[in-house]
Amino acid sequence: MSAHPVRAGQGFAVGDPLHQQLTVQLGERSYPILIGAGLLDRADLIDTLLPARKVAVVTNTVVSPLYFPQLRRSLGDREVVEVVLPDGEVHKTLPGISRVLDVLVANRLGRDGLVVALGGGVVGDMAGFAAACYQRGIDFAQVPTTLLAQVDSSVGGKTGVNHPGGKNLIGAFHQPIAVLADTRTLDTLPDRELRAGLAEVIKYGLIGDEPFFAWLEQHAEALLARDPEALAHAIRRSCDTKAAIVARDEFEQGDRALLNLGHTFGHAIETATGYSSWLHGEAVGAGMLMAATLSQHAGLMDAASVQRIKALLLRVGLPLDARAEVTREAAVAAMRIDKKVKAGKLRFILMRGIGRSFVTSDYPEDALDATLAGFFS
Amino acid sequence: MSAHPVRAGQGFAVGDPLHQQLTVQLGERSYPILIGAGLLDRADLIDTLLPARKVAVVTNTVVSPLYFPQLRRSLGDREVVEVVLPDGEVHKTLPGISRVLDVLVANRLGRDGLVVALGGGVVGDMAGFAAACYQRGIDFAQVPTTLLAQVDSSVGGKTGVNHPGGKNLIGAFHQPIAVLADTRTLDTLPDRELRAGLAEVIKYGLIGDEPFFAWLEQHAEALLARDPEALAHAIRRSCDTKAAIVARDEFEQGDRALLNLGHTFGHAIETATGYSSWLHGEAVGAGMLMAATLSQHAGLMDAASVQRIKALLLRVGLPLDARAEVTREAAVAAMRIDKKVKAGKLRFILMRGIGRSFVTSDYPEDALDATLAGFFS
Repeated sequence: MSAHPVRAGQGFAVGDPLHQQLTVQLGERSYPILIGAGLLDRADLIDTLLPARKVAVVTNTVVSPLYFPQLRRSLGDREVVEVVLPDGEVHKTLPGISRVLDVLVANRLGRDGLVVALGGGVVGDMAGFAAACYQRGIDFAQVPTTLLAQVDSSVGGKTGVNHPGGKNLIGAFHQPIAVLADTRTLDTLPDRELRAGLAEVIKYGLIGDEPFFAWLEQHAEALLARDPEALAHAIRRSCDTKAAIVARDEFEQGDRALLNLGHTFGHAIETATGYSSWLHGEAVGAGMLMAATLSQHAGLMDAASVQRIKALLLRVGLPLDARAEVTREAAVAAMRIDKKVKAGKLRFILMRGIGRSFVTSDYPEDALDATLAGFFS
Repeated sequence: MSAHPVRAGQGFAVGDPLHQQLTVQLGERSYPILIGAGLLDRADLIDTLLPARKVAVVTNTVVSPLYFPQLRRSLGDREVVEVVLPDGEVHKTLPGISRVLDVLVANRLGRDGLVVALGGGVVGDMAGFAAACYQRGIDFAQVPTTLLAQVDSSVGGKTGVNHPGGKNLIGAFHQPIAVLADTRTLDTLPDRELRAGLAEVIKYGLIGDEPFFAWLEQHAEALLARDPEALAHAIRRSCDTKAAIVARDEFEQGDRALLNLGHTFGHAIETATGYSSWLHGEAVGAGMLMAATLSQHAGLMDAASVQRIKALLLRVGLPLDARAEVTREAAVAAMRIDKKVKAGKLRFILMRGIGRSFVTSDYPEDALDATLAGFFS
């Protein structure tokens, strides 16, 4: 649980558009985020940032053959154990954590050991929660290999698993000691996952950065074509926003809830469909449009802004309609157990405009009903 | 995760030997410890200290019929769910936590809900860990009903469960918002558990309080006879030491390890016997004598002090010989996965004398071998 700042001369050159570096400012729990093409081959950086001598790399069946050999090489003469999870959100469960812990115990990882998450959001959430629970908390590092993980889930220390009764209901706040985002890993990312990741990128524009939203409108095609410079910029700008919000409110007592824009609706879709047919980013994309629509029904935002949001989500290729799969009843039941319930009333992140989001439990019930009616059957 | 100091006029009169009050000083996570006869009936205090409107009381099959009705009455018009665990350390497992979490989800406990642990160390560790994991951490309070829990496990925020590979290998640091120790609950405590609790009381004398050790030598019979004033004094003095150490070192980076006196040996006994035949306090009692013996073999402490420790443990009626059940090989295997291993070398709490304990990895291997040979087969 120690901080490992990047030493002078070990980081990236300033002004290199493909290599970015920032810090999440959390006092003694501060840690660096490195964003760069080819990071997995940088044994020099990895040696500095991950000094532990014994490492458990948690990954999954899809990512392991693609990137574990590279990471293993860069870990040099460390003792390395690989833990390969099945792929998919459906496996993000407490029994899944139990199996990871069994491997850590069987390999006698000590308190000075390190858990590395190599993969997307599911791998990061599970590896982080296992590290949080093992011996009451050991170090872990994030090596995210999906766009969604690089811009969102690998940063900020939220870890955990789903419960049949709700998304991420079981977990811990446990900050990584470093985040290493190798943008080259996005080369092998399926199109559908790239689009899902872009939903979270768009989220940062909607929360508080209208100029970034406008930049995304101009660069949507470049991002979909995986232009390296556009991707590096989008990831950097997203991480900047996320790091600033997390630094202000690590434990989600206030502002951090803004990062849940679209998530109450999105979690309802995921829970009601058993975490199987919608990707998390897809559900958040549809959820953000629902939040915009609720904002419009509540008289907070004009129709033109809602249309602008919808247009960008559609250009990115995100699904926006859950009517075929989710009833209003199922969605409401799932939302009621969501963590955003306070004193019995659902809290939402609503918008007064693009880049002007805020947290509230104050909205007309009929505006919520009208929103649910438009998106669920 | 908020602090709830006792309001003026709501606490106990100063100088009342049967009612004691202190605070664990942890900044915004500070909390009160109340020690008193009849606390479970003090609806006024419970109302102030546990303001949540929805409460899950975690208890077990033995404690529930004895004390749940009383606590339930004092919780007044709150919405209360009871979670009844099977009795015993053997049930302190991750699947056990999963069942507690299922109940919290099924009853839709919110982030503003409260988990109350009503019982001994196992109940406290499990309820606390469930509260730490549920929605990434909600409030919990300790209502310990065994001597061991009142003097040790309910204070300090260590929560967790055992793994087949080792004791307390899975868990979290999660401080309670209050500790309410009703000394009347000790009236129904089996003799064997009272003796096991006294082992942890003796520990505080050995760590850093020789005068308290001498007081215990003078009052052993009064404590075994459950003299209320002697018990209240022993609990208060134990909590004073524990609270001070926890305040200095919440996350066990240094001094807090002193509280593990006897625990590396003790955990080995518990692990090697499957957490079934030795109570935790009994194992710690034998473990403290092993630590003293190792200190003697290492030339740190004289034989007379070791004999004084052994004499008090025997007067209290604690078992001190694991030869019938544990081999040296099994003990060593269990100790190697214990959390106290650092850089491959076992750390122990050793003594330069009674009340003069310290943490070290520096001891002759043959002194350890000789100690193990004397206590294991």
